[in-house]
Amino acid sequence: MPTFQTVRGMRDLLGEEAQAFTGIIGKARETALLYGYREVITPIVESFELLSAKAGEEIRQRMFIFKDLGDRNVALRPEFTASIARLATTALKNEPKPLRLFSAGNVYRYDEPQRGRYREFWQSNFELMGSNRPEADAEIVLLTANFMKSLGLHGCAFKIGHMGILRGILSQENVDEKTQNAIFQRMDKKEFEEAFKLAPTERCRRILKELLKLKSDDCFETVEKIKNYVADNTMAKSAAENLSDILQLVVKSNCPVLVVEPAFARGLEYYTGMIFEVYVPELDIALGGGGRYDRLIELFGGEPTPAVGCAHGIDRIALALQAQKIVVGAEHGKRVLVLAVNDAFKVEALKIAETLRQSGVTVEFEVMGRKMTKALEDADRRKVDYAVIVGERELKKDAVMLRNLAKREQTVVPIKELAEKINR
Amino acid sequence: MPTFQTVRGMRDLLGEEAQAFTGIIGKARETALLYGYREVITPIVESFELLSAKAGEEIRQRMFIFKDLGDRNVALRPEFTASIARLATTALKNEPKPLRLFSAGNVYRYDEPQRGRYREFWQSNFELMGSNRPEADAEIVLLTANFMKSLGLHGCAFKIGHMGILRGILSQENVDEKTQNAIFQRMDKKEFEEAFKLAPTERCRRILKELLKLKSDDCFETVEKIKNYVADNTMAKSAAENLSDILQLVVKSNCPVLVVEPAFARGLEYYTGMIFEVYVPELDIALGGGGRYDRLIELFGGEPTPAVGCAHGIDRIALALQAQKIVVGAEHGKRVLVLAVNDAFKVEALKIAETLRQSGVTVEFEVMGRKMTKALEDADRRKVDYAVIVGERELKKDAVMLRNLAKREQTVVPIKELAEKINR
Repeated sequence: MPTFQTVRGMRDLLGEEAQAFTGIIGKARETALLYGYREVITPIVESFELLSAKAGEEIRQRMFIFKDLGDRNVALRPEFTASIARLATTALKNEPKPLRLFSAGNVYRYDEPQRGRYREFWQSNFELMGSNRPEADAEIVLLTANFMKSLGLHGCAFKIGHMGILRGILSQENVDEKTQNAIFQRMDKKEFEEAFKLAPTERCRRILKELLKLKSDDCFETVEKIKNYVADNTMAKSAAENLSDILQLVVKSNCPVLVVEPAFARGLEYYTGMIFEVYVPELDIALGGGGRYDRLIELFGGEPTPAVGCAHGIDRIALALQAQKIVVGAEHGKRVLVLAVNDAFKVEALKIAETLRQSGVTVEFEVMGRKMTKALEDADRRKVDYAVIVGERELKKDAVMLRNLAKREQTVVPIKELAEKINR
Repeated sequence: MPTFQTVRGMRDLLGEEAQAFTGIIGKARETALLYGYREVITPIVESFELLSAKAGEEIRQRMFIFKDLGDRNVALRPEFTASIARLATTALKNEPKPLRLFSAGNVYRYDEPQRGRYREFWQSNFELMGSNRPEADAEIVLLTANFMKSLGLHGCAFKIGHMGILRGILSQENVDEKTQNAIFQRMDKKEFEEAFKLAPTERCRRILKELLKLKSDDCFETVEKIKNYVADNTMAKSAAENLSDILQLVVKSNCPVLVVEPAFARGLEYYTGMIFEVYVPELDIALGGGGRYDRLIELFGGEPTPAVGCAHGIDRIALALQAQKIVVGAEHGKRVLVLAVNDAFKVEALKIAETLRQSGVTVEFEVMGRKMTKALEDADRRKVDYAVIVGERELKKDAVMLRNLAKREQTVVPIKELAEKINR
């Protein structure tokens, strides 16, 4: 039989890569705890209806959709927010607000595979529900900044915008919501020419083009310019003021570099307010992003509930860490091989191995039945720190031979002092 | 719009349940590390061909199978071993043996939902590849025992058997492999009458029935009886001797109660040697199990590689912990609400919140813009330990008001002593 391969777009995470993923998710979980977010675990398989409701046309077309054996239309989640919003309208409907929820796991999109992009990828996700105030938006941006910091990433920069400004402008120009969403999806991909072509009037195109030019190096200056530019548009102006309030809180809390992008949009249809993305200089893709979605929970049949959230791409964070030569989630502590000089002492050796593990030492037990020299050579090659050799002579004195493999030195050590000696 | 629901057979894990799942997986990962197992993360979506190759007819019929957008036949993994065996024949083909691999995550089977059984469930999985020796089998049993112990579960009992004994008997009776597998699947479900009906001869039925009766309270006595019973069957006898060797190692290493079941079989077709399951008295379903599969890697196109492994049902372990009133993965440390007396001090309050988090304190920031009394009442109801109230008078002295919510006492505390005072 020929060997089996992974399905196109899927991949195995091995060695340091698997360690990094687990480490990054661990840090996301720590961040969640520190900010008072509770973990929830939702299914990867959800109804197609739920996942497609407000995901946006582009994501809808790239979902893994199928029928289960009960003929239900289901799909693999392309993101977390729809599932969390479902929770907020059902099981967690009566929970006191604010509701802070954390999730981490796989999501699926049928994209063309390329470096750093797979069809199965990993996200950590934070949602804060129940507050429409700028401190809620600020919290989501700040926790993202602190999550990045906890990983040791440096040079993080945040791109911030506000869907309310764009929606305010387009609504005043009588652009219907469907066309608005189509325009935003193009803008999200920085296809501005194509986006502007979708604008129904020359006037509308001109307004959008001029908006782009308002960008300045100072984020407050940009917002002031936007405020003036949309002064006669109630919705857009109030959005610009909201953005200014959020920026005040974020900047004064020592968040990394902030850039306000007047023409920044995100492809997910549910965003209504502030939106952001975080970058490191080494990568041109965002490590994470999010924004405010005040109408989604209502659209899903719940009480009107303002909400803001973010997701972080574990795969991309892993690439960024690699680029910055940062190792997370590495194994700590000494590694030990325990082996018996012959089969008569296997049981004693097994017991010693177990005692060491109970003291927190990583112990591999020799299971290959190899001659001692061969087993030791192999352990040395694999950078094991110590070998514990269990034999008759030492056992008589309740001791074993402890061999430092790198130094090629060995000493007789009483069993009860073994863990301490290794951990020292 | 009516609210969305989870798809039948899927469920959300919330609150303590989510905490327990994360806690159990954390303990599995710790166990992996202590035994020298490396974590690998394989895709949930694999080729149908891989997953169905040796899973057994029953699992094959209960898989979530679909075509991806590239018209590939894929399925959601119903277990881990096929993916790990794939790895062993491809990316990890040239790794030195023994190869110790750990995984944890979701698996999928289209079963009829019932208490503790969902169509998406969770497993931790350990595989030890490259050794055909009894100490490898013993390691897999012992690490399972120690994983259960690390969770605080008591009363664990192991049921042990050997597929080589059963296969030896049936092969000598000229029962083809397909019929053997069908018989084992019935035996796995304890449908012994139905299983024996599949035996092609009366003689064969009688041999199997007699085998069942060999069970005794003492596991070594049972194995001795089996050895005598199959004395003229080379394959079955050698299997019984192998089982005896494994038992010696396991029992002498202080493993919990062991019961040898002569007619114990497991449904997965790939098992060739020792098989086991672990139980607690409170549940009649196994918390985990596994066994030896010496031919799978060869069948998948790799070098002949003896292997032994096990999987643990996180869902079932969570039920067992609940039944034994054991809490794992609980949040530790004090919970604090930080709030400003009015909007003018929001930025200061945000900074203090961040400083506390950096000292490991769980801090919720008041994002609802509520009046102080209301925010404090709510925090008290949610069992938050302290409120940190940021106001002008105290800030002038670089201090804040620290309120113990349960005791209804408050004192002025310098900001730089705050974390210490809370953590004390």
